Amino acid sequence: MLIKDIGEQGLLRILQKFCPAEIVGDDCAVLPTNPHQSLAVTTDMLVDGVHFSDRTTSPYDAGWRAAAANLSDLAAMGAKPLAVTVALAVTADTAVLWVEEFYRGMTACLEVYHTPIAGGDVVRSSVVTISITAFGEVECDRTIRRSNARSENWAIVATGVHGASRAGLELLLNPEFGLNLEKGDRTSLILAHQQPKPRLDVLPMLWEILGCEGEIEPPLSPPLGKGGKQDLNSPPLSKVGVNSPPLTKGGPGGVNSPIAIAGMDSSDGLADAIIQVCRASGVGANVDRQKIPIPPIFSQLVSPETALDWALYGGEDFELVLFLPIANAELLVEKIGNGAAIIGMTTDSTDIWLTDSSGIYGDIRLESDRGFQHF
Amino acid sequence: MLIKDIGEQGLLRILQKFCPAEIVGDDCAVLPTNPHQSLAVTTDMLVDGVHFSDRTTSPYDAGWRAAAANLSDLAAMGAKPLAVTVALAVTADTAVLWVEEFYRGMTACLEVYHTPIAGGDVVRSSVVTISITAFGEVECDRTIRRSNARSENWAIVATGVHGASRAGLELLLNPEFGLNLEKGDRTSLILAHQQPKPRLDVLPMLWEILGCEGEIEPPLSPPLGKGGKQDLNSPPLSKVGVNSPPLTKGGPGGVNSPIAIAGMDSSDGLADAIIQVCRASGVGANVDRQKIPIPPIFSQLVSPETALDWALYGGEDFELVLFLPIANAELLVEKIGNGAAIIGMTTDSTDIWLTDSSGIYGDIRLESDRGFQHF
Repeated sequence: MLIKDIGEQGLLRILQKFCPAEIVGDDCAVLPTNPHQSLAVTTDMLVDGVHFSDRTTSPYDAGWRAAAANLSDLAAMGAKPLAVTVALAVTADTAVLWVEEFYRGMTACLEVYHTPIAGGDVVRSSVVTISITAFGEVECDRTIRRSNARSENWAIVATGVHGASRAGLELLLNPEFGLNLEKGDRTSLILAHQQPKPRLDVLPMLWEILGCEGEIEPPLSPPLGKGGKQDLNSPPLSKVGVNSPPLTKGGPGGVNSPIAIAGMDSSDGLADAIIQVCRASGVGANVDRQKIPIPPIFSQLVSPETALDWALYGGEDFELVLFLPIANAELLVEKIGNGAAIIGMTTDSTDIWLTDSSGIYGDIRLESDRGFQHF
Repeated sequence: MLIKDIGEQGLLRILQKFCPAEIVGDDCAVLPTNPHQSLAVTTDMLVDGVHFSDRTTSPYDAGWRAAAANLSDLAAMGAKPLAVTVALAVTADTAVLWVEEFYRGMTACLEVYHTPIAGGDVVRSSVVTISITAFGEVECDRTIRRSNARSENWAIVATGVHGASRAGLELLLNPEFGLNLEKGDRTSLILAHQQPKPRLDVLPMLWEILGCEGEIEPPLSPPLGKGGKQDLNSPPLSKVGVNSPPLTKGGPGGVNSPIAIAGMDSSDGLADAIIQVCRASGVGANVDRQKIPIPPIFSQLVSPETALDWALYGGEDFELVLFLPIANAELLVEKIGNGAAIIGMTTDSTDIWLTDSSGIYGDIRLESDRGFQHF
C-alpha cells in the first residue's frame, strides 16, 4: 500500500497513533513546563514546487511567509515567541543568493516580533526543503485552544479583513485582473499575500480586555442576551443577561484569572477556522455573511459572491478567529479596530450556519469543502 | 554562485550571519526561559539516499537513529528531553509500511527516555525527508557547553567504548568481515550501529558526582596534580593538589552549585568531539591512545591501528565526551562503569596531542581531517 492509496487523511490517521492526543490537535503542541507556563511548539515543512516556487514567489517572500505562518500558529495559541529553528536542504545547484534572500525574508519577519533563529541544520538533497519549528511560551490560563468555545453568549471575532491574500495572489497571477485599482490599493493586496503579518499584536489587547495584565480591570458589563444569530444585530452592551457566565473567574489570591478562550488562525481559510473550533468545542455557530470583514476595495474589484468566497475560502490571511464572551468580544473588536469584527455567535446545536442579516440570502450550511487540502 | 561553489562551510558562514552567536554553536541552541532554566533545542534533517537508505538501513532503524541522534544532542547539553516534533515529506509512491516502521523505530527509542512526539507536519515531496526537532530543559548552572573546559587539572572522559558503530557498519556492508565472531558479539556491534543509545542515563550520575541533586554531597577530594599527560597514569585520588580549582562553587544560600562542565557528543567521531571542545574553550589536550575505550572484541577483529582509527573517526557512537576536574572525572567513570574512561587531560597550550603511555608510538597531533563531512 502506497501513500497515494491512502491520501493525506489516511496518513495522518496512522501517524496520530504515535502522538499523545493530549498535546496535539491544535495550532501548536502544548507542553507544560512548570505549574504556570507551557511551551507551545509548531513545525512546518516547505518543499520547492509544492509550497513555494520561484515562478510565483521571490525567495525573500517565501522566507517571510514561512516565518509568518509559524508565528501565526504561536499567536493562535496565545503564545509569545521564543525562537525558531530552521532545517534547510539545498541542492548542489541552488543559488547562494536564493538561500540568502530566503533567510533575509525570514529574519525580516522574525525581527518585527523580536524572535531569533536559534540555529538548525543544513543538508543536501535533490529538492530544496525547509523545515521551521517555532517555540513560544504561554501562561497556562491564557492558552487559546480550539476546544475552549462555549455556546452561551459567545461571539466569534475575526481580527481583520479576509480575502486580501487571495486577491493579492490573483493580481500576481492574472495581469488582466484589477487594472482599475490605484497603485496603493494594488500594492496593499499584493503585500497581504507576499508578506502577511501574524497577529501577535492582538495578544496584549486580548489579555488587557480579559483583565489579566497583572492589574485588576474595572468590572466589565456581563455578556449579552441568549446567543444565536439574532444577537448579531443587537446594539452592543445594551442588554444585561441574567444567566450569563461570568466574564472572569476568581483566581488565587483574589486576582481575576482570565476565561479560557478559544480560537485558531485563518491560514487555511476563515470557514475552516470556524468549523474546526466549533467541532473541537462541540458547539454550533451562526455566522452572518454581512459581518465578515473584507477589504473595502473589493467593491471595485469583484462581485459580492467572489468576495465572500475569497474571504471564506481564500486562506492565508493569517488573522486570528477568536471565540469569547460577547462583551469581551465587543471590547476587543473596538480595541483592535482596523477591520476586526464580530462575525457570528456560537449556538448550542452542532450546526454551523451562514446567515444573512440583510435578508437577501437564506441560511445555508457553512461547508469546509472548499478549504485547502495541503496534500 | 551556486552552493557547490561554496560548499558546506561557505554556506554555514553565510547562514551564521542570521543567527545570534550567543545562542548557537553548541550541540543545541540554548534559550533562557526563566532565571533558573533554559530550553535546549536541536534540529536534524534527514534525506533519503543521503542520510539513510533502504539498502543499508531498515526504516525502523532509520527512525531509531534519528531519535537517538537528537536525544544525544540534548544529553550533550545536560538537558532533560521534553518532546520532539517531526516534519515528514513523503512521495506518492512511498510505502505506508515504510512510514509506519520509521515512526515505530523513532517512538521505540523515544519511549526509553519518556519523550513524546508532540506533533509535526506532513507534506508531499519528490524525496522522502524527515526533520526532527528535539527540545529539553536544562538548569542554567548545569548547561554543558563546548566552551566551558579549563586547562588546570581537567580530565577528558569518554562515557563508553568507541568504534563499535563503525564495526557494526562494516559487518553489515562486508559479508567476508568478522566471520570468526560469535553471534552475540556480532549482534552487539550491529546493534551499536543500528540502534545507538543516547547517554541521557549519564546525566543523573553527573549531577550526583557534582553534588547538585538538591542534597549536599560529602566534600569531594580536591583535584589531582598539575595536569598534562603524566597524570593519566597517576593512581586515582592519591595526590592532593594545592593550586587546584574548587570542585564546587559556593552558590546562593550556601548550597553548592555545580561547576560548569564542558562536553559534546561523539556523533561525528571522538577526535572531532575532543578537537571541537578544545577549540571552543581555548585549551589544548593530551589524549592517551592506550586509554581510549574500544570494544574488547576488537582484539579478535581488527589491527590496533584500525581499532584506533575506528574509535577516533568512525563516528555515530553517540557517547558523551565530557571535560571536568579530574577528581570528579574519576568518580564519574567509576559510577558509569562499562567502558567509561578518562582518556586524557587538558593543557594550557592549544595543541592537541595523541600520546602513547605504552611508549610504542611517539606523540602525534590529533587531526580532525578524518572526521565526517556531512555535505
